[in-house]
Amino acid sequence: MNQLIDTLLNHRSIRQFKDQPLSKEQIHTIVQSAQQASTSSYYQAYSIIGVTDEDIKQALSNVSGQFYVKDNAHLMVFCADFHRAQLNSTEEQKKTMNGNLQNTEHFIVATVDAALAAQNAAIAAESMGLGICYLGSLRNDINQVSELLQLPDYVIPLFGMAIGYPDHQPERKPRLPMNAIYFENHYANDQTLENQLDTFNNQLNNYYQNRSENKRTDSFTGQIHRKLSKPKRQDVTDFVKHKGMNRK
Amino acid sequence: MNQLIDTLLNHRSIRQFKDQPLSKEQIHTIVQSAQQASTSSYYQAYSIIGVTDEDIKQALSNVSGQFYVKDNAHLMVFCADFHRAQLNSTEEQKKTMNGNLQNTEHFIVATVDAALAAQNAAIAAESMGLGICYLGSLRNDINQVSELLQLPDYVIPLFGMAIGYPDHQPERKPRLPMNAIYFENHYANDQTLENQLDTFNNQLNNYYQNRSENKRTDSFTGQIHRKLSKPKRQDVTDFVKHKGMNRK
Repeated sequence: MNQLIDTLLNHRSIRQFKDQPLSKEQIHTIVQSAQQASTSSYYQAYSIIGVTDEDIKQALSNVSGQFYVKDNAHLMVFCADFHRAQLNSTEEQKKTMNGNLQNTEHFIVATVDAALAAQNAAIAAESMGLGICYLGSLRNDINQVSELLQLPDYVIPLFGMAIGYPDHQPERKPRLPMNAIYFENHYANDQTLENQLDTFNNQLNNYYQNRSENKRTDSFTGQIHRKLSKPKRQDVTDFVKHKGMNRK
Repeated sequence: MNQLIDTLLNHRSIRQFKDQPLSKEQIHTIVQSAQQASTSSYYQAYSIIGVTDEDIKQALSNVSGQFYVKDNAHLMVFCADFHRAQLNSTEEQKKTMNGNLQNTEHFIVATVDAALAAQNAAIAAESMGLGICYLGSLRNDINQVSELLQLPDYVIPLFGMAIGYPDHQPERKPRLPMNAIYFENHYANDQTLENQLDTFNNQLNNYYQNRSENKRTDSFTGQIHRKLSKPKRQDVTDFVKHKGMNRK
């Protein structure tokens, strides 16, 4: 076990930050680390918007419903991005490329590129003693986020990341038992998986009942059913298509 | 600049591995690191298949057309996965959840979850002196990969990762200038971006002409146009829908 792995294993999402800014060098190193992640076919099919304008931060905080979208040392929004393919292109090239840009394959390419870059940014930040929180909640109103950041076609704002010096130390949330997410050669059968989920449900309930704050009775399976039963962000599908991606 | 950031900045994809296996502990630590990545709504909506069966490795290598899918110390396949939501569920719960599971929002959730876990795995491996290569090429025949690994509904094999002790030291490939992927508050205007791409095209051409192997004349924009102009993996769209995701 080395220090880097310690950093990975000690990750927890940070939602309260000290009132202490990042230096330009820190932001530079975080973005540089993001850029060095692997990228499919060398496309580098993502962009990052660093949000410093207080009005935009407030508006994004309203979209997400979370104060830490505004109250942090730095806010980044990670986007799947094939817009650069449109530049320095003839109309004919644009037309030829469109078959690919519109399919799910290239939506996967850009989404994965953005996520790999983001996770490098997260780890770089954590290695400097900073904390981070991913903000999927920006997709609560993906159209508005896109307008606020003036995103062109082929650019999808996937999630944000709040960064700053931690002002709390939440407990590490348990993860599924390894044999419920890691399989050898073949996917596990349902009976085996159901047993593992049962075990984890008990373990997680213990965690909820014994943690220092927000004690409650809950299970993993129960949470999933509950969360997935309310229609959520149904407009993301059309938004992505409207931007020219994942249409066919 | 700390040691962790050095590891991130020194990343290069490794495609030739020494004939030296990983220990069980190494694999365990890599998966454990993957599991500790952030996960949207605590869904942990991904799975990893470790492939050790030589026949399956050979078949996956045939799909990808790349020898290092077979010739490595360990092979993992990362999947977007909402199958666990189907377990311990009544028929009525399944029906209620389906509206969410079928939309693009939840395809993003699972794809990002898988990618964040994968990047933690990659970095954990690199911190141990191992090298990795992402294998999007498994999507060359995504149906066959799914059959080989016996993946149920709501499970999408996104990419593989070859891991092992590096047996070559490729040069670090340049990345886009930071101001072509990182913007403040608003997306950049096209003219500015086109100028940055022009600069990068020259820089990249220098890299290709001066590197130690496979010297050629090429540009970033030229590559993108060339790659995106050939229809690629058009069957991924239908495969994902067939598995129950990203349909509406």
